[in-house]
Amino acid sequence: MHGAVLYGARDVRFEERENPKIVQPTDAIIRMSATCVCGSDLWPYRGIQPTPQPIPFGHEYCGVVEEVGGAVTSLKPGQFVIGSFAASDNTCPNCLAGYTTSCQHREWMVGAQATMLRVPLADGTLVATPDMPSDEMLPSLLTLSDVMSTGWFAAEAANVQPGKTALVVGDGAVGLLGVLSAKIMGAERIIAMSRHQSRQQLAREFGATDIVSERGEDGIARIKELTGGIGVDSALECVGTQESMLQAIRSTRPGGHVGYVGVPHGVLFGGEELFYTHIHLHGGPAPARRFLPQLIEMVWDGKINPGKVFDLTLPLSEVAEGYRAMDERRAIKTLLRP
Amino acid sequence: MHGAVLYGARDVRFEERENPKIVQPTDAIIRMSATCVCGSDLWPYRGIQPTPQPIPFGHEYCGVVEEVGGAVTSLKPGQFVIGSFAASDNTCPNCLAGYTTSCQHREWMVGAQATMLRVPLADGTLVATPDMPSDEMLPSLLTLSDVMSTGWFAAEAANVQPGKTALVVGDGAVGLLGVLSAKIMGAERIIAMSRHQSRQQLAREFGATDIVSERGEDGIARIKELTGGIGVDSALECVGTQESMLQAIRSTRPGGHVGYVGVPHGVLFGGEELFYTHIHLHGGPAPARRFLPQLIEMVWDGKINPGKVFDLTLPLSEVAEGYRAMDERRAIKTLLRP
Repeated sequence: MHGAVLYGARDVRFEERENPKIVQPTDAIIRMSATCVCGSDLWPYRGIQPTPQPIPFGHEYCGVVEEVGGAVTSLKPGQFVIGSFAASDNTCPNCLAGYTTSCQHREWMVGAQATMLRVPLADGTLVATPDMPSDEMLPSLLTLSDVMSTGWFAAEAANVQPGKTALVVGDGAVGLLGVLSAKIMGAERIIAMSRHQSRQQLAREFGATDIVSERGEDGIARIKELTGGIGVDSALECVGTQESMLQAIRSTRPGGHVGYVGVPHGVLFGGEELFYTHIHLHGGPAPARRFLPQLIEMVWDGKINPGKVFDLTLPLSEVAEGYRAMDERRAIKTLLRP
Repeated sequence: MHGAVLYGARDVRFEERENPKIVQPTDAIIRMSATCVCGSDLWPYRGIQPTPQPIPFGHEYCGVVEEVGGAVTSLKPGQFVIGSFAASDNTCPNCLAGYTTSCQHREWMVGAQATMLRVPLADGTLVATPDMPSDEMLPSLLTLSDVMSTGWFAAEAANVQPGKTALVVGDGAVGLLGVLSAKIMGAERIIAMSRHQSRQQLAREFGATDIVSERGEDGIARIKELTGGIGVDSALECVGTQESMLQAIRSTRPGGHVGYVGVPHGVLFGGEELFYTHIHLHGGPAPARRFLPQLIEMVWDGKINPGKVFDLTLPLSEVAEGYRAMDERRAIKTLLRP
């Protein structure tokens, strides 16, 4: 089979790799229907996170079950499945508490930008769709593997409530799907921070009521102005930098909630500042597995169409161009078809 | 009148001060029945926070209304009242959201270790008891001004739930009352971290089921051992140092809650660590005013006796000795009687 491998900063190669096989009886092998490039992959792609040795790249996936190990009970070959970017047993205390990405047997998925993939802990990681999906539905189903689930978790962690105000910091695919999630959860006013017209437009399509293009102190002042001087009830932090985190925290009302899902890079919270803001802070890697059944149903019923975040589709063999386009912000998110 | 004034590190003087008078029509003047020394005052007392000029000291108080300004509607002279350590209007959006210590007109109280006190925003700050309390009830009522409300907020912010596990980091008066609060809120297992026998004993009396004397990595390992390797559902951080904060965070299960009420001194949270712990973080200065009616009722009905944290009672004139005893950890908390 073929797959993407990261060799170092901005060096992604599409090359022949060994066919995956069942290693543990709880494994499944899937044939990829669609995969994509994640914003979080841009950290190692840009060399901000080092790559000491070549790594099979990609962790978002959906496809058809090819083979299952002897201990897999809930899946069978021929089913269409979507899985979380982190494998989980879905039975340990952390999974039962809803935090599948803190599973005691968690395995971060790698090598999903490939024609085939081994998925460990298949029963606890993969969820089958009711039937074989249409080609049009594929992009939306693929988003549930990570990006849509992550936007959804940002909104949940930020305690978005019907009739309340939500701010979304970050206009990448996660932020845009954070807007969609806040809309589904009933937020009355959704403020998206963005300076890019195409992203602003998609944000509005997903439910943003206000767009703020200012940043830093000016951005905070603008949010306060829009919220009677108080700040928002919920802020979704979807970037992971110190600047975006402070933007979220300082734009939130006392007693409000900040949900953060951007993998923090060099972020430090000052204890005293947090203390006097009175905010609630929650986040982490989205427990996508918990959200899959609910989100699959919403996509299946045509209630949401998160696949709109893909504004570039390429053959999997052109994965390197997919990264370049996102790195240079020419694309919001790249879908790859094997 | 007479009151305590902090002049510099370990220099508290009891001296003559001008009688307080009504300045704003929303003010009230109270005659002090009891006041006390707060653990948070030990930061400036020890010189860790500088004292650029002499400051009237103390912020916990209860007493009898002597005089009210023309705009005060809910109180009258002769009533016994307890007030929050921060004055609040109790009508602004932040107060209505429950965060009275983030009131848009907040004033931190000072100079409460005195025979008389001016309380601004009296309608929004003071709550009267049903009747004149007995002398035995005074200590417990006094704790509601700050220390009991702060322990209560730690438990609320840590989302203590019936049947769940709570950890209390810090065996000062706030931590001990955090134990009491967790008990009232129905926690099944309450682990108190303490190395001092008298404090351990009071913790058990208030409802602690387990005492852990280890600290740091050993302390975390012990908590994990007591909780099936997972960590506690709720951790109450009642100190405010980097060590205590990490103790709380690292002892909490993924998806669990840390409530922090110790004023942070030099505390930094690493974004990446927080992200992967999956904890909820909330805290700040306790909105004591919100809790006062409920807590007064519990004290009045004899349901709680938080006044037990006072293990030293002195005449107000001996306030300097009250500080010394707490500084040297000879006393958990000092009550001062004018």
